[in-house]
Amino acid sequence: MPKQVDHEARRRLIAEALWRIASTRGLEGASLRDVAAEAGISLGQLQHYFTSKEEMLAFALDHISALAEQRVRSRVQAVSETPEPRTVVRETLAEMLPLDDKSRTGNLVQIAYFVRAVHSESARGHAKKGVPGLRRFLADQLARAAADGTPHRHPNRHPDRHPDPDEAAMLLIALVDGLTTYTLLDVLAPDEALKLLDRQLDLFFA
Amino acid sequence: MPKQVDHEARRRLIAEALWRIASTRGLEGASLRDVAAEAGISLGQLQHYFTSKEEMLAFALDHISALAEQRVRSRVQAVSETPEPRTVVRETLAEMLPLDDKSRTGNLVQIAYFVRAVHSESARGHAKKGVPGLRRFLADQLARAAADGTPHRHPNRHPDRHPDPDEAAMLLIALVDGLTTYTLLDVLAPDEALKLLDRQLDLFFA
Repeated sequence: MPKQVDHEARRRLIAEALWRIASTRGLEGASLRDVAAEAGISLGQLQHYFTSKEEMLAFALDHISALAEQRVRSRVQAVSETPEPRTVVRETLAEMLPLDDKSRTGNLVQIAYFVRAVHSESARGHAKKGVPGLRRFLADQLARAAADGTPHRHPNRHPDRHPDPDEAAMLLIALVDGLTTYTLLDVLAPDEALKLLDRQLDLFFA
Repeated sequence: MPKQVDHEARRRLIAEALWRIASTRGLEGASLRDVAAEAGISLGQLQHYFTSKEEMLAFALDHISALAEQRVRSRVQAVSETPEPRTVVRETLAEMLPLDDKSRTGNLVQIAYFVRAVHSESARGHAKKGVPGLRRFLADQLARAAADGTPHRHPNRHPDRHPDPDEAAMLLIALVDGLTTYTLLDVLAPDEALKLLDRQLDLFFA
């Protein structure tokens, strides 16, 4: 009888090995063999789950996204059972910033993916699928706020120059990416990055 | 008599080798030896100029910044001899976006530096010095626009919630970093990134 393998447990083991490498020496130079060694399994066993570094990084990112979504959901619900759009948007974006060790490590995995995807078109699928999804989610929240009458109306300016919900959503996603960069480089303190995010939200919500 | 070496020419040669590596396979995995080979000089000759990869990347970034500043200056002057603050801010930030092959390669060198600096505190000096300088420059332009009465006044909102020039400057720098990320990942087209930058400038200038 073949030995039973708990595939879910092994995937978690691999994700945790990736996590440890990302938070210490970085994933950029790490091979599949390095990750197998860190997880305490053979290269062959690792390749049962992932045949390329791209696949492994995509798995790690999906894992991070799922954990982050859980955290956002519980943070939003801690604030209110019927949260305002601004609260949902703020907590979603704040979760993406490197404000603590856990989110910082998530950012390091994302950077490893980013470097890979910049130099290899075939690795860009995760970003090309994930970012528009997040953008639609945020745009929907911003549109809900607009329908409630909570966003700013600027009577003294040309109305079509104010970003629409879809544009505002992408501005927020890009801003958070940049705030992450400068926080990881110690140019911004974490609380300064969060304050700047709030300043930007002030422009989109009353 | 010792052979005369044109140090300036050799530095340029090395910068161009760095540039070529950055635009093809990426600088992340490149060693000093790889760069020397690409430049057609010995490792010893390269080490006459740079003793570490950090030094070499810092040199490449300074070189890129100097070229970018020249390009911004001529673009701004092509618009007007007495340019508006918005024009100066816009052209400075647009130059940082990967809108053509030249600026795209500059961004790839910056990413190589970024990855290095995220994992090594000693490499962060360039960013910790350069970003505040750019922030002061942009804040000064935004403050000039405010003194001219051109920025928005929002009579219907609490005045202290509008970003001050220093905050607005950092919001713009972070935004451009994020727009660069998503343009390099093909999530945004270059013209979409530029349009989003203009939308953000609409929030800060009349």
